Amino acid sequence: MIVDGQHIQSLSYDPQHDVVQVIDQTLLPHQFRLASLASLEQVCHAIRSMQVRGAPLIGVTAAYGLYFALRDDPHALQSATEQLLATRPTAVNLRWALQRVSAELNDVDPDRRARQALDLAQVMEHEDIAICEAIGEQGAAALKAYWQEQGATAPFNILTHCNAGALATVDWGTALAVVYKLAEADVPVHVWVDETRPRNQGAALTCWELAQAAIDHTLVVDNAGGHLMQEGRVDLCLVGADRVTAQGDVCNKIGTYLKALAADDNQLPFYVAVPVSTIDFNTLIEDIPIEERGPEEILELVGIDVESRMTTVRHAPSNTMVSNYGFDITPARLVTGIITEQGVFEASAEGLAGLVQR
Amino acid sequence: MIVDGQHIQSLSYDPQHDVVQVIDQTLLPHQFRLASLASLEQVCHAIRSMQVRGAPLIGVTAAYGLYFALRDDPHALQSATEQLLATRPTAVNLRWALQRVSAELNDVDPDRRARQALDLAQVMEHEDIAICEAIGEQGAAALKAYWQEQGATAPFNILTHCNAGALATVDWGTALAVVYKLAEADVPVHVWVDETRPRNQGAALTCWELAQAAIDHTLVVDNAGGHLMQEGRVDLCLVGADRVTAQGDVCNKIGTYLKALAADDNQLPFYVAVPVSTIDFNTLIEDIPIEERGPEEILELVGIDVESRMTTVRHAPSNTMVSNYGFDITPARLVTGIITEQGVFEASAEGLAGLVQR
Repeated sequence: MIVDGQHIQSLSYDPQHDVVQVIDQTLLPHQFRLASLASLEQVCHAIRSMQVRGAPLIGVTAAYGLYFALRDDPHALQSATEQLLATRPTAVNLRWALQRVSAELNDVDPDRRARQALDLAQVMEHEDIAICEAIGEQGAAALKAYWQEQGATAPFNILTHCNAGALATVDWGTALAVVYKLAEADVPVHVWVDETRPRNQGAALTCWELAQAAIDHTLVVDNAGGHLMQEGRVDLCLVGADRVTAQGDVCNKIGTYLKALAADDNQLPFYVAVPVSTIDFNTLIEDIPIEERGPEEILELVGIDVESRMTTVRHAPSNTMVSNYGFDITPARLVTGIITEQGVFEASAEGLAGLVQR
Repeated sequence: MIVDGQHIQSLSYDPQHDVVQVIDQTLLPHQFRLASLASLEQVCHAIRSMQVRGAPLIGVTAAYGLYFALRDDPHALQSATEQLLATRPTAVNLRWALQRVSAELNDVDPDRRARQALDLAQVMEHEDIAICEAIGEQGAAALKAYWQEQGATAPFNILTHCNAGALATVDWGTALAVVYKLAEADVPVHVWVDETRPRNQGAALTCWELAQAAIDHTLVVDNAGGHLMQEGRVDLCLVGADRVTAQGDVCNKIGTYLKALAADDNQLPFYVAVPVSTIDFNTLIEDIPIEERGPEEILELVGIDVESRMTTVRHAPSNTMVSNYGFDITPARLVTGIITEQGVFEASAEGLAGLVQR
């Protein structure tokens, strides 16, 4: 992605200092600052505190975490894997990335494990970029065709939830990769950005990222999408996902299901863009763990005050009971298609059977 | 309602000082403070700035506004009515209240208009209390019967959106009047409170009000309701409304439609509690004006900081485009019943034909 005119990745490895540089996403959109991660503990903290977030980016970051662990202790493979897995239970890419590294390292001599883990993490970093760009191309081809079928009216209004952008991956993004490739293909796209309570990734990250990319967009509260669809102001919904089942059910940021219901009620397409590694062929929908996070994410609102200081305010009575689920499940029946690097598939067991598992 | 052990109304007229005392709802839940309104301008400001809000309460407040206008200028009936109508275009009770006062005053001698306007405002204030209590009783009878049919399991989980409580009326509320009467009838009710972005009336007002009434409740973000319903943790949805058409379509706080879709998808009842004055027999759904409010309501989050100072923070990039519709329309097909002071009616032209228009 381009930030203030410079090409930058959400994550990159610096061999000179043997650290991983990540954009600290908890400071955006107010401050653009890189954080250096140099140990397993720092990687776990970065994932847990959501300095890095987004299913694909978490996977690659965790692979570097394993490298740091093995560099410091060549026998730490199992314990480091468990420590990393516990940071975010819902994202399947995290498990996928860790299993991939573990599978390749199990039979490797302990002295050579760290070197090989680093090589693999770098491969995964570069793969992620290529996969996301391919998702963008596949999705843009399908969506441009749909837009033309509908009369090619301007703007082409896409509603998105949370941040499935370059910031959620090493670069390009998933859902937003499609948007960027549509813009490259001269489709006059306009994005409705859901604020995405409680962590406001839409307001803070998607708006920032789309502004950097000069993509036309409008911020709305999560409550507004249904009304916009009823009024004919949305042409299509497009989101990412943290996990997709083999049957095409989609686990994504809490609130996604409500938008899918509204799209269905208004006969609008609802697309999900993911790398194939997000598709979990082994877990049934009812067995997906839905992460619960702390009450402070809801009770405390973070932003900058009039003097540009990062400040936290509370809007509810202090002793209020809170429930804070991070994700919900959108049943496959509400999903028009799953956009992947291998093409666009129907959200069903038959449809997804057509792709090559990695 | 009881506040810190004392009985209080959201609005009351103080004849000694010739002012209307209202709870300043922009300061809740952090500060409980009464504001005194003594002129048409102060009433308009209080409605526009949402020191008073909630369709029924706006209606009564506006009636006092007409009194102040006529006290200061007996010929101001028309201009004052227009000024008040412009403060909040969606709530039909405002128009209903103003039309009722105007109709009664048109043929009254100018000298006697102010006195009569005051009498009428006081009648409307007391009527509102009685009507809301009756809504509570009608709704509680129907909902208790439903709860018993379902096996009377504890708790009886009701999800509500925004604040349709005592704070939205002179006293008791509409949707929350039903909750209070259920609690009086020993039903072990638990309320899921939608935060209700962008103004957070759920977090700020409903949580405060339910805590004062010692009703068990849990705050969730607006995105969470669909997941809670899928998980079987909601038994029923219950909201108020700003306007209901003769066909049973419901105009309420933005986001209501999304919850009605989720209730429908999970075969859960979706009830709307309103005074009959909220039912607009004259306007078609497509002609209801949907109020658009300022971008600062979305970009700026208000709360108290760690030092308990009211503070405003911004969470999105400062130049972000924002769209801020206040209301949406829930089609009658998604509504199980309209709870009124006259009983519970089916949300349809035939169903609502059964009630007596006021």
